[in-house]
Amino acid sequence: MVLSDIEIANSVQMKPITDIAAELGLTEDDISLYGKYKAKIDSNQLEQLKDKEDGKLILVTAISPTPAGEGKTTTSVGLVDALSAIGEKAVIALREPSLGPVFGIKGGAAGGGYAQVVPMEDINLHFTGDFHAIGIANNLLAALIDNHIHHGNELGIDSRRITWKRVVDMNDRQLRHIVDGLQGKTNGVPREDGFDITVASEIMAILCLSENILDLKERLDRIIIGYNYQGQPVTAKDLKAGGAMAAVLKDAIHPNLVQTLEHTPAIIHGGPFANIAHGCNSVLATKLALKYADYVVTEAGFGADLGAEKFIDIKCRIAGLKPAAVVLVATIRALKMHGGVAKADLATENVQAVIDGLPNLDKHLANIQEVYGLPVVVAINKFPLDTEAELEAVYESCKKRHVDVVISDVWAHGGAGGRDLAEKVIQLAQEENHFSYVYDEEDSIETKLTKIVTKVYGGKGISLTPAAKRELKELEALGFSNYPICMAKTQYSFSDDAKKMGAPKDFTVKISNLKVAAGAGFIVALTGTIMTMPGLPKVPASEKIDIDAHGNITGLF
Amino acid sequence: MVLSDIEIANSVQMKPITDIAAELGLTEDDISLYGKYKAKIDSNQLEQLKDKEDGKLILVTAISPTPAGEGKTTTSVGLVDALSAIGEKAVIALREPSLGPVFGIKGGAAGGGYAQVVPMEDINLHFTGDFHAIGIANNLLAALIDNHIHHGNELGIDSRRITWKRVVDMNDRQLRHIVDGLQGKTNGVPREDGFDITVASEIMAILCLSENILDLKERLDRIIIGYNYQGQPVTAKDLKAGGAMAAVLKDAIHPNLVQTLEHTPAIIHGGPFANIAHGCNSVLATKLALKYADYVVTEAGFGADLGAEKFIDIKCRIAGLKPAAVVLVATIRALKMHGGVAKADLATENVQAVIDGLPNLDKHLANIQEVYGLPVVVAINKFPLDTEAELEAVYESCKKRHVDVVISDVWAHGGAGGRDLAEKVIQLAQEENHFSYVYDEEDSIETKLTKIVTKVYGGKGISLTPAAKRELKELEALGFSNYPICMAKTQYSFSDDAKKMGAPKDFTVKISNLKVAAGAGFIVALTGTIMTMPGLPKVPASEKIDIDAHGNITGLF
Repeated sequence: MVLSDIEIANSVQMKPITDIAAELGLTEDDISLYGKYKAKIDSNQLEQLKDKEDGKLILVTAISPTPAGEGKTTTSVGLVDALSAIGEKAVIALREPSLGPVFGIKGGAAGGGYAQVVPMEDINLHFTGDFHAIGIANNLLAALIDNHIHHGNELGIDSRRITWKRVVDMNDRQLRHIVDGLQGKTNGVPREDGFDITVASEIMAILCLSENILDLKERLDRIIIGYNYQGQPVTAKDLKAGGAMAAVLKDAIHPNLVQTLEHTPAIIHGGPFANIAHGCNSVLATKLALKYADYVVTEAGFGADLGAEKFIDIKCRIAGLKPAAVVLVATIRALKMHGGVAKADLATENVQAVIDGLPNLDKHLANIQEVYGLPVVVAINKFPLDTEAELEAVYESCKKRHVDVVISDVWAHGGAGGRDLAEKVIQLAQEENHFSYVYDEEDSIETKLTKIVTKVYGGKGISLTPAAKRELKELEALGFSNYPICMAKTQYSFSDDAKKMGAPKDFTVKISNLKVAAGAGFIVALTGTIMTMPGLPKVPASEKIDIDAHGNITGLF
Repeated sequence: MVLSDIEIANSVQMKPITDIAAELGLTEDDISLYGKYKAKIDSNQLEQLKDKEDGKLILVTAISPTPAGEGKTTTSVGLVDALSAIGEKAVIALREPSLGPVFGIKGGAAGGGYAQVVPMEDINLHFTGDFHAIGIANNLLAALIDNHIHHGNELGIDSRRITWKRVVDMNDRQLRHIVDGLQGKTNGVPREDGFDITVASEIMAILCLSENILDLKERLDRIIIGYNYQGQPVTAKDLKAGGAMAAVLKDAIHPNLVQTLEHTPAIIHGGPFANIAHGCNSVLATKLALKYADYVVTEAGFGADLGAEKFIDIKCRIAGLKPAAVVLVATIRALKMHGGVAKADLATENVQAVIDGLPNLDKHLANIQEVYGLPVVVAINKFPLDTEAELEAVYESCKKRHVDVVISDVWAHGGAGGRDLAEKVIQLAQEENHFSYVYDEEDSIETKLTKIVTKVYGGKGISLTPAAKRELKELEALGFSNYPICMAKTQYSFSDDAKKMGAPKDFTVKISNLKVAAGAGFIVALTGTIMTMPGLPKVPASEKIDIDAHGNITGLF
């Protein structure tokens, strides 16, 4: 019988979180408990530990995702447990899952099988309330905007050019496009509006990039909520919003401490959309973890073209971080899909499909080695039906790049299934690396975009729509040229066309528009249509979720 | 120099909440910590303590509210501190404040001066996340409704008759009336919609009336979200929503433990709108408090016609509670306003205005004594400019009813300023009382409404609009006749006209419509327009709220 994730999670007795904290040298004064198995770490710890040497940062990324799934979080959790098991001081730093998708298709997002972070039902539901706080801060700003217009609009905000949306932590397509402020003059001013899911809020990205509460407040004040009738940006500071928003986030700024099923400390904090934002856990979480451990395992959203590029060019650049090694996760199933096999046919051995899919893996490897300049190992997240011949094709391909391929069996065996990977990672992390950004801060916006597309994606170049050209000029005029770029691109392809799997060539990436996230401190380059509010499927996962008289939850995956 | 509420709150060193819990006989296994000064009490405690005798329940209510303010929460906190100070085992049970109004006019809602519950900034902001959980459960149901329609509407939900709204914990008038589901077939189905503030959600009322998690789940499943094209009610159960909603509320169902400035245990849990809902803290909180203490001080929203009536006819009836005594809070300032004085003129002595306002106080006293059958004391919440002559007028009036009047000076002096009140309450609570509901369960809906209006409000009777008459027939046909009534009426008058202050006579209350809250288990009778989403003022309180580098918050009142 295969146990569900929550059944496995519940079969393990967690350690009190005070014990986990003690392993990191944290006393009860350094943490705030949220029940017995969750705590917040006082982020001011970082100041106290500033002279301590940092551990090594291991980035887990993946090939371009497919509907077959890759298991990046599962591999990350298994890796950190394996590192602990062989006696290394290791901590994992992860993103918090979004509550909305739990009720949709996705189920939980805290690893899987015997490689999970726990308490998984808490982590997947409200956790310590960080996302709720972000939602309130976001919606406070939204309410202040419309309230300002309602009471006379002294700032002259152009209601057709408000870019700040409200958020809800729910998959709710009905709220994507709305008209609000209806029914007369006591009920606001009618305008077109819409909701994003909470993770897509710029405040999530801001929280993840802030160094401390004052930095957070200043970033919040810099948020551009839209434009006035003269075309000038209107900021949160103009609405005197930063102080109250920061107050709302007073607890959310502190990273959360939990544990893996094998009691390795896990710091889980923040989870910005990997699409319109940079998709990494908070800088504070990563920096604290580096003070506590010799090895910090972390992951970035989507594939290595998207998440890892932003991890490097946005997070590492802003925070002054340097990864020691990279794990590139792949599955035989996903490679077969890149090789043209339909999801229904993945159970059949198909070596040729694996070979046909390998260019995707190879291009990611080339990027990690040659563009990012980092040592890398490929981790094959094992599935029962993988065959030796299929695996052999992967070994052959990677041999040409002198990259080792390791089988990771952590879903079934936890840390014990990740020992080879852990040993390889330790070895790679001692190697010299030539870490490099993809572009320079001083590059023009157009040059930055071109470098990402040509160096990382393997495309010919970029084209800008007239709207993007106009916006580019405006952003330059406003002095945002030095900001890094946050690519909002489909995760399924190196190109901007989700259907071009594998490693497409000779394509141009069309930049449909640009948008500044002035608080987060990056320019979002939009390619194609980016969905910032998911919907629920015909049979939502919520229908299976239940709770019994003792408070035990079932139906969470 | 007068200190602000938050300055006073910060000047007192709180005890660790584990110490407060220990005073109630609670071990660390009975509670979940939320930081050092907040905890959730495992509500299953109630089952373990079921054979323990209950303490005495003291209800704090007030005259009809005026813009001058009465200080009901402040009086309640001071009273419980005074009871503790004179050696009684006392606990206070209060409602959680809503986050939205904190940014509006109101500021905090955790008492005032030296009679506060702390940590006040946490209680006023996210507290332990209960309201966020309610918001998510509410919005999950909303998303499931529209998702069901989007995917083919098998249940035949009539989108013009959906009564379930989305919520946000924010004063956001812009969201009162919206059209959502716009922009084509991938983005939902267009319909008229709107948002309430989170406290107005039926789920808040449900949480406050549930006996345990299974009762909660069953109540959630009974929620009527609207009607199908055949005019039949559609429930949350039809959408298979109850299990997931209850799972979302798994922590929220447990009452929260904090303390007063004088370290008296305070159980704060739930806070349904006192208008369209019954406006009392949770049944679980009250019942637990009664197990822990000899005296439990609690309050009900608005004046004794509205909050106390619903406390008695809804909460006490459903939960089998019986109050031992009532404190009726009044201020000289508010009595003067009932006597016709404008807010700007309250600083001047005006004995005649007090006398002219006293019929309001007297009618509330008559109700408490003769309708509810409970012993009562009047607490005058002292203000610096109250004069002896003005106070004398109150003594004179109450003497006729053999009701004592006690000066409460707890805002300035905490428990020490409430000693007389505490002694009087102890005396009253030993007296025989003739506790009685206003109506019987078996009365028809119309009879119940008439009894409330004639016995409590002092009106002649009711009139029903044609819509209310139709709805009444429908509710009877659906079998809801036995439900208690939740009056949604202006709090400013005994009548349904906010301008009729004092003790109006010869009026008829117009029932504009009826609505069943099938999960909460009451019928809401709407009189006039009830605002379920407040707005922000021209200069929102949020502009003054700030946080410093150490995480200290300023500007919360």
